[in-house]
Amino acid sequence: MSTEKIHPIDVIQHKRDGLILSDAEIEGFVRAIVERTPENQLVTDAQIAAFLMAVFQRGLTLPELATLTRAMRFSGEVFDAAPLHTFTVDKHSTGGVGDKTSLLIAPVVAAAGLTDPMISGRSLGHTGGTLDKLETIPGFDTQLSLARFAEVLRDCGASMIGQTPTIVPADRVLYALRDHTGTVESPYLICASIMSKKLAESLNALVLDVKTGSGAFMKKYEDSKFLAELMVATGEASGARTVALLTSMDEPLGRFSGNWVEVWECVDILQNKRHPRSSDLIELSNILSGYMLYLGGKADSPEAGAKLSDELLKNGEAYKSWLKIVAAHKGSAEHFANPAAFHTPGATRVLNAETSGYLSTMDCTHVGWAVQRLGAGRAKPGDPVSANAGIEMHAKLGEKIEAGQPLVTLFADREDQLAEPARMLLETMKIAPGKPILNPLIREVIVKK
Amino acid sequence: MSTEKIHPIDVIQHKRDGLILSDAEIEGFVRAIVERTPENQLVTDAQIAAFLMAVFQRGLTLPELATLTRAMRFSGEVFDAAPLHTFTVDKHSTGGVGDKTSLLIAPVVAAAGLTDPMISGRSLGHTGGTLDKLETIPGFDTQLSLARFAEVLRDCGASMIGQTPTIVPADRVLYALRDHTGTVESPYLICASIMSKKLAESLNALVLDVKTGSGAFMKKYEDSKFLAELMVATGEASGARTVALLTSMDEPLGRFSGNWVEVWECVDILQNKRHPRSSDLIELSNILSGYMLYLGGKADSPEAGAKLSDELLKNGEAYKSWLKIVAAHKGSAEHFANPAAFHTPGATRVLNAETSGYLSTMDCTHVGWAVQRLGAGRAKPGDPVSANAGIEMHAKLGEKIEAGQPLVTLFADREDQLAEPARMLLETMKIAPGKPILNPLIREVIVKK
Repeated sequence: MSTEKIHPIDVIQHKRDGLILSDAEIEGFVRAIVERTPENQLVTDAQIAAFLMAVFQRGLTLPELATLTRAMRFSGEVFDAAPLHTFTVDKHSTGGVGDKTSLLIAPVVAAAGLTDPMISGRSLGHTGGTLDKLETIPGFDTQLSLARFAEVLRDCGASMIGQTPTIVPADRVLYALRDHTGTVESPYLICASIMSKKLAESLNALVLDVKTGSGAFMKKYEDSKFLAELMVATGEASGARTVALLTSMDEPLGRFSGNWVEVWECVDILQNKRHPRSSDLIELSNILSGYMLYLGGKADSPEAGAKLSDELLKNGEAYKSWLKIVAAHKGSAEHFANPAAFHTPGATRVLNAETSGYLSTMDCTHVGWAVQRLGAGRAKPGDPVSANAGIEMHAKLGEKIEAGQPLVTLFADREDQLAEPARMLLETMKIAPGKPILNPLIREVIVKK
Repeated sequence: MSTEKIHPIDVIQHKRDGLILSDAEIEGFVRAIVERTPENQLVTDAQIAAFLMAVFQRGLTLPELATLTRAMRFSGEVFDAAPLHTFTVDKHSTGGVGDKTSLLIAPVVAAAGLTDPMISGRSLGHTGGTLDKLETIPGFDTQLSLARFAEVLRDCGASMIGQTPTIVPADRVLYALRDHTGTVESPYLICASIMSKKLAESLNALVLDVKTGSGAFMKKYEDSKFLAELMVATGEASGARTVALLTSMDEPLGRFSGNWVEVWECVDILQNKRHPRSSDLIELSNILSGYMLYLGGKADSPEAGAKLSDELLKNGEAYKSWLKIVAAHKGSAEHFANPAAFHTPGATRVLNAETSGYLSTMDCTHVGWAVQRLGAGRAKPGDPVSANAGIEMHAKLGEKIEAGQPLVTLFADREDQLAEPARMLLETMKIAPGKPILNPLIREVIVKK
């Protein structure tokens, strides 16, 4: 990084006026964010907020975005995978409902001989979080040191941990201020936030699952595609082979949405007990793993990679990796023999179809909020989540429905938590006489231009 | 004001996205600024900064601007002129070099039977401040209570005081944050800041002197005109008859620039001792006063008003008002008999012309900074200013110059303060062989559309 002294107001004004910021300006601004102290406010919250709004309005060029991402990535501790002498590859999803592909992909990638250093997040808004799901496994520790993370990766080929305060500290400051000042929804700022954290994992390759549709954070297809293009360009600019898949999030992925129920669904698949309503989950996982295996040289094409992934799920090799990963994280495997028995919600309610027809539409964000209200998600950071809360979908979009058949089952810890989510789900799950036309699961694949 | 609860983030996001803010949103946001406490941050500095940058980028509609200005105006104590049963009119200038028209206009307007409740500012950047000039008069008190202000207005027809912490407190917060976050130069924010403070004077009419040219804060003519149009629309929307004059600020106005030297120049004019290099000052003062007298019903046209103003300066009536105003502010008149004798700079230097020709151009902002560096202005708020520092122009733009003749005299408290301003002035005052084409003093008059 440059050691040139920059003045925050100059940087703000240059971006405000639509000028292109120099590397020294961006690096100096990010450095000021992490080096400031209460006594020495090298840059104030107000100045950062003004900068964020200027970026929101004016955008960034791809080189500016690459520089911002790099400056954020190196603003704190960085995981160094070089001593592992392996090919590192990770998957990142922009967040969905019932999206548990990480729990299948990590063991598949590890079973194939690649390494997945996965640093994950928690449930946010209407979407679930990998850490919350893993922590329903008794004993599972997601708070490993980077030294222990490296050991688990060496021994198991994959490890899943949470953010630490020392990794990408600039993003902690920027994200909190974005959340507080109405500047979250900038594709540039979203890209820099995601990519700085992913690239801090020391990746050779990255596959991005950019959700689009009613359950995605970005509802408009063009917005999702623009974000995907920014992230691919930013990843490639930093030397990581990067591919983004635009995928449909019009309904919860798979059979269950929640925490333990999602682990249960994945354990079933890893044990090759495939439930019919897990088929979209299995398909998406295999396609994402397929790209990862292809980028890591384990398959000659993404399609061959997906086939290899499916084999590793079916032949039990991925399950072996899963058991090793869980054990390395001090998790107990005792409930994997009968995951259903470990699912002990205090209250359950089945919602039945009121008419016959086809399940035609739902607002998947409303479904996600219903899951959150059942107790599976949190209203604010730090809130506890319920292990047992969640839903089971008894029908997927496009399925034929008979009046009176079960549509969805709700799980909560307490009876009084059921009413509002039940109302939300009944309201949003629409049954229509005609068979609906659905979006394909994979809408588009974005590669380096 | 509405008592509806608003959420700062909603207001920021609406403006961010280019929506039109409701009155309740704007009023609630401003109310949160003045009602917040360290314990209860109804709105944070970071949120205000994000809002300011969003307004900077997106602008405001005229109704939004009128609402913001009104909300700021009523954010604290407001002067109430109603009990005075008089027509109140004031003049505001956007800031210039050697601009001392206020010291002539207030006594003229008072002598004509109108009331000028003038709340003024201090020297800022390269421009002078009325309060700093008045305070060179021994004893002159600019910090009157609003109750005493009303008494002086009733007795003398004019009073000149400084901002108080209780008048328009929202602007104090907003201005400090604009200065700190690179959001000063928004015409919308400039308009709201100026007009909220002026309208808090309880005005029936307002004449704005919007400077354009090398010595103005806004260098581009179209920018000055746009600001003038915003201010006229905002003033009229609040029920004050408002006129803006776009006037040239290509050289210092009149003979002197500084503090006591400007009082001296005005006292000379009030005593009908007119120096040739004061003619632009007298002309501009009469034109501005003329509009004020016209708006206040003391003349049938602005031109007739200007003629009346000139008469009041010549016949000693304005000087009588001046003496009453000064006395009411506890100022001493002892030096008015011989103002030159009270001018006792510790160091003086005359700069002579190096070649013959015409004084053709100068960067008037550089001239203003030279005056500031001599000690007449301040580097930061709260710094003291020198009573004696300043300059005397021995030539105006377009005047014929002989090599060796004095161009400008510099005054400072100490010899070591002369060198840099002398260099700045010599560098910027250009003598050319041909007579320059100058801008007219009054470029354009903006009235309600």
